[in-house]
This record gives sequence, C-alpha cells and structure tokens, in this order.
Amino acid sequence: MTEIDPLTVGNAAWREADNPHSPVLQFPIDRPLAMDAGLSLASLRIAYQTYGTLNADNSNAILVCHALTGDQHVANVHPLTGKPGWWETMVGPGRPVDTDRYFVICSNVVGGCLGTTGPATTNPETGKPYGLDMPMVTIRDMVRAQAMLVDHFGIDQLFCVIGGSMGGMQVLQWAASYPERVFAAIPIATAARHSSQNIAFHEVGRQAVMADPEWAGGRYFDSGRHPTKGLAVARMAAHITYLSDEALHRKFGRKFQNRAAPTFSFDADFQIESYLRHQGSTFVERFDANSYLYLTRAMDYFDLAADYEGSLARAFHNTKTRFCVASFTSDWLFPTSASRAVVHALNAGGASVSFVEIETDKGHDAFLLDLPELFATTSGFLEGAARARGLHEARRPE
Amino acid sequence: MTEIDPLTVGNAAWREADNPHSPVLQFPIDRPLAMDAGLSLASLRIAYQTYGTLNADNSNAILVCHALTGDQHVANVHPLTGKPGWWETMVGPGRPVDTDRYFVICSNVVGGCLGTTGPATTNPETGKPYGLDMPMVTIRDMVRAQAMLVDHFGIDQLFCVIGGSMGGMQVLQWAASYPERVFAAIPIATAARHSSQNIAFHEVGRQAVMADPEWAGGRYFDSGRHPTKGLAVARMAAHITYLSDEALHRKFGRKFQNRAAPTFSFDADFQIESYLRHQGSTFVERFDANSYLYLTRAMDYFDLAADYEGSLARAFHNTKTRFCVASFTSDWLFPTSASRAVVHALNAGGASVSFVEIETDKGHDAFLLDLPELFATTSGFLEGAARARGLHEARRPE
Repeated sequence: MTEIDPLTVGNAAWREADNPHSPVLQFPIDRPLAMDAGLSLASLRIAYQTYGTLNADNSNAILVCHALTGDQHVANVHPLTGKPGWWETMVGPGRPVDTDRYFVICSNVVGGCLGTTGPATTNPETGKPYGLDMPMVTIRDMVRAQAMLVDHFGIDQLFCVIGGSMGGMQVLQWAASYPERVFAAIPIATAARHSSQNIAFHEVGRQAVMADPEWAGGRYFDSGRHPTKGLAVARMAAHITYLSDEALHRKFGRKFQNRAAPTFSFDADFQIESYLRHQGSTFVERFDANSYLYLTRAMDYFDLAADYEGSLARAFHNTKTRFCVASFTSDWLFPTSASRAVVHALNAGGASVSFVEIETDKGHDAFLLDLPELFATTSGFLEGAARARGLHEARRPE
Repeated sequence: MTEIDPLTVGNAAWREADNPHSPVLQFPIDRPLAMDAGLSLASLRIAYQTYGTLNADNSNAILVCHALTGDQHVANVHPLTGKPGWWETMVGPGRPVDTDRYFVICSNVVGGCLGTTGPATTNPETGKPYGLDMPMVTIRDMVRAQAMLVDHFGIDQLFCVIGGSMGGMQVLQWAASYPERVFAAIPIATAARHSSQNIAFHEVGRQAVMADPEWAGGRYFDSGRHPTKGLAVARMAAHITYLSDEALHRKFGRKFQNRAAPTFSFDADFQIESYLRHQGSTFVERFDANSYLYLTRAMDYFDLAADYEGSLARAFHNTKTRFCVASFTSDWLFPTSASRAVVHALNAGGASVSFVEIETDKGHDAFLLDLPELFATTSGFLEGAARARGLHEARRPE
C-alpha cells in the first residue's frame, strides 16, 4: 500500500473539522442537540453548503442528505481533495436538482468530520477533540440537527429531501419524524433498517480501525498519529460492497497491473488490487477514523419501524409526503427488496409513492454515477411535485 | 474483541507446523518440489491423515482436498481445537465417502501450517521459519505435492478426488494435470478461476494482516508475537463471504446480544457482531498469518484455462474422468455460474459430467454443513463410479 504519513495526512483532515471551508451555524450553549443516546450536545456546530436562491415564500428548498463518507460539498470543489463535488451530476444549474430553480442545502451530518460537530471537533470543555467522548449518534440525531438548520433558514416545509444510502435513511427519518415539513421525498438505494450482513461488514471495518495501534482507544489526538492503516483496510472492505461482481469483472476481471505475467509475490499484481489500495490510501486523506466508527454505528442502529412498535407502515401513517423510491438491480448492499419493503409500508400507510428499480451493473455506488435513468426519474418526479406545490412560477427566481 | 495473547496463541500453532499430530512424509533433498514460481522446494514435508484400508490392487483410494483454512484432519479430532474433523459429516464409516469401503487420504497443502512445508515451517537452511522466503505457492504446486504423496502409497490412479472451494480448485487441477490418474472427480462450490471480487476480498484480508505491526514484514518469528489482530480482521471479513444475506438474517437478524436495548457504544450490541468477533479470535488460535497470505494468493492466481491457451475445454480435452459438479443457490463467493462454466467446458471436452445445484440458504459454507442433498448426490455418484470401476467387491475389505 502507498505509504501514508499518519501525521500530516490525518491532521489536514482535522483542520477541516474545526475550520471548515463552509459556512458554519454555531448554536448557543442553551440550544443543545437532544440525542437518542440520552445525552445532549451543547455548542452544536453545523457546517453546510447552499446552492441557488431561496424564493420569497421559502417554498423551493431541497435538502440533500449525504452518505456515510460524503459531506456537504455536493456541487463545489472539495476543499481536501480538490475534486468536484460528490453529486455534481445530480445537483447544479440545469441538473435534475436544478439550482436555477431550487435552493439546495446540504449539511455535514452530526458525527461527521467536515465541520459539523463530531469526534474530530474540539470539545470546548477540554480543548481536545471529542474522540470517544462524543455521544453515539443516530440517524434521527442527524435529522434533528438538520431540522435546526432548516429552522435557521426560516423554512417551514422543505420542498424535497433527497439522498442515497445513509442519505436515504435520513430521507426516510425526515418523512417519519416531520411529515408536515417534507413535501416530497426521494430515498435512493437505501433501507428502513440495516441488515445483519451490513452490520457485519461495518463491524469488520470498525475492528480494522480499532486493531490499528495508532487508534489508541480513540485518543490518537494525543500522539497526532492517525490510524491510517486500519482505516484504509476498513475502506477497502467497504468499497467492495459498493460495487458489484459484474462491474468488477467488466472493469478489472483478472487483468494484471503494468505487467504481462504474475510476479508470484504479494505486490499488487492484479488491477483490482491496486485499485482497492488506491481507494484505501486516498480515503484516509479526507476522513477521520473515529467519525467512520460513529457513522457506521449510526447506520447499524437504524431501524425505523422499531420506533413505531415494529410497524414501518405506522411510521408513514397518513403522510401527505409524495415519495419516489429508487433502487438498482445490482446493489447487493441495499437490494431492491429493501426498497420494496419501504414501498409496501408507504402503500399500507396510504402514501403517494412511485417506485423505480433501475437496471445497472454498477452496484450500490450507482447513485453517485452518471446514470441517465436516475436523472430522468428524479427530474420527472420533481417536475410533477413542483407543479403540485405551485412552484411553476419559481423558475429562475430573480 | 476477546483479548488474545499473540505470544502463546501463535506459538501453539507454530509447534504444530514443525511437529504435527499427523504422519509426515519427508522427501530427501534430491527430490524437491518443482514450483510454478520457478523455484524448487528442497526438503519437502507432507503431513497427512488416512482413513480406511487400501485394497489389494490400490484401486479404492479417495483423495480429499481441503479448503483455504482447512487441513488434513478431515475425520479425527483436531489437535489444536479439540473439535471434530472438518468433514466428519461426509467422511467416515457409513458416510458418503465411506471409510469402510474406501481408503481416504488428505494432506495438508503446501503453504499450509499444519505440518506440510509452509511459511511457518522451519527452514533447514536458517533454523528459522521460512516466512516470506517460502516461494509463492499455486494450486498446481499443491497438486504436484499431493501426487508425490499418492506415488508414495503406490497408487497409480485415484478412484476419486473430492473437495470444496479451494479444495475444488485442486480437484479441477488434478483432473487437468493428471487425467489418467483420476477415475472420478467431485468439485464442489468452486471455480476454474478466481473472480475479481474474490481477489478483492482476499486482498483486504492480506492488507489487514500486513497492517498489523506485529506482522513485521512477515518476520514475526523474530519477536514471537503474532499478528493476531490483523489476522482476526481478515477472518471476519472472509467469514461474511462464506455465509449468505438470507442465512445471516435468519440466524441473527438485528437481535441484540444479552441485552434488550442498544447500549449506544462500540460494544458488540448485535449478535452478529459477537459471532464475528468469536470467528476472528478462534481462528488465530489455529492458523498462521503468513500461511493465510500464501493460500489466499494461491487461490487468486488460479486460472486453469490460462494454462491451456485460455480454453477451459482444452484443459479437459478427451478426459475419461467422470465428474460430479455441485454448487449452492445462495453461494455468492463461488456462484452457480462459476460451476456452470466448468460444466460447459467439460461438456465441450466430451467429459462425462453430472451437475447439481443444491437449494440452500447457507451460502458457500454449505459444503461443510449437514446437507442431506449433498450427501445423497455424493453417495449416488460414488456408487455409480464404484460399479464402473469394478469396486463392488471392495466392500469391507479384509
């Protein structure tokens, strides 16, 4: 694996946690975030990006919810990697989520490491990062914090909440927790609860981080040396689950990397190996290991029905929100069956719902890729919802 | 994770590498093993177990080939774990591979750590374990060593070669390398080449081992401290791939371990987590980390067609061996499509082949489990083959 300096790399990411390249909403100490773990987080900070213009009656706002390793940099250059925003194909002028028409908000989730309060944030009480003193975060906590941000903008009802994977979990939680505040919802490649197999993969990733002696029980801020090796292994394992057997076969097969024959060694003989190592080593440059632990755990704990006496239909009972649920044929992390369970519950709850399963071999990651059918689905659904919401005249607001 | 003492644990396994609880065949220095990596291994040792009695014309021998983390202890108590042999359901008196009728041989593969030469074996030239000085091992090397063992028994033709997973790869290699020496072959839950996704999972496991500072570039014999944490993570990741989403859901679902509600911590709240941690911590008590690297690499390199100008059919051209190919519906590591590719090649090569896809939700591990349909398939196929081979009268040899 490419040698990463655990000191410089981790610390660059950590600077972003306290001093993000984003606007930050800092809540006063008397407005803490009430958390599911029973604690409350004082001095909550939310780092966010916005795109487009909020219209006069505050009715054209779309909240984008990011996935496990995503962030608020949806449609601008990423401050740490210098790469385009993670959803520039979906969000921007003339894109399906059209920033010429809509006011788009995306905030870093609670527990994240790009400026919103998380384990890498300096704890004002100690002057050191929270580390494992950060209370455990749930999807509902993330959504509660987002609601505080939406309040700040004076928005009573979001026109739409959209997101994939862990972002989709937040979409479902928004619709369940604040049905009257969500006009339309687009949960993509997600589930109303994390499966046993998915918990298992997350546990492997966490154990890989915790097995790294640099992790030091989460207190690596004492040494300034980050558990980059463990986190890279976690990322590699997770990355496989984001792809599909077919896509890997098509893209890499058994092709050798810069050689004609095997070296009979532990070098990265195969292209898939060097690709994976690259995924591991670039990830640690932009992500905090403790954040990775917290956010995987939040997904593990997610079980929306559990909050409604085990009935997912009850979570959406009598909802007026319009839903567009999307899944991908080759996604084995959040398979179509998981989306279908959501659709069944929505139907049982009497909701307006359209459901599309998109044929692709690109696996779970498809929601981040250039997928015309996903764009067409999103555009079409938003168009219909905008008409229903009376947003025709909102086009290109002055 | 349960705390493992990397000193005592690893060293118990290492004692087995040099002083196994098995008969050992030690080859003289002038009969080295020629290896695909271009080197030859002098002082080859093969540790093996046998069950039953070889008949007068040496025609009733069945070679069992073990999987990645298996060993020669097919049907006897394991010397390190004290548990029953790994295939006692399949092999024994009155079992499908009936030791009252057949002479069953199983040897630890080259590169293994239960007594056959591998990285944990003491290198006679240095007095220390080979470690990474061990030449890279291929499936063909394993089979070549097994052929030397079979020669030792004076057996010209094996009645049958049987194995699952990496064992199935050896079965296919036997049939291709020594068609006249294999009367019947039973490759189970295997493939003629390792897929890109499977290489990816192996690479994650290897990186987990190598990320453990105790691994020390493979020279952990200098400290006597074994990379147990890294190896446990590797095992956990691999273990998920041996199961299936359905089986995990049925067996564990989202059930909590010894508690009614989440603890909001990184403890093993979910049963699946404590199960996985247990799999990791018990594995390191019986397996050498370098061996794990070598054997996963051997599987990665396996591509039988590549040795026959890319044509798998050519590998089996005009073979007289009878084949019984078996796969499992829920096996996503070696899916039925991989077995079907073998069957197509056998058909194209004009072989006698029967193929059964067994309906089960138990995933890849099904070949090790109590699966009546697999036993019935094996019994029936062996019965027919025994008749064809004229082994009727071999029943209960005196």
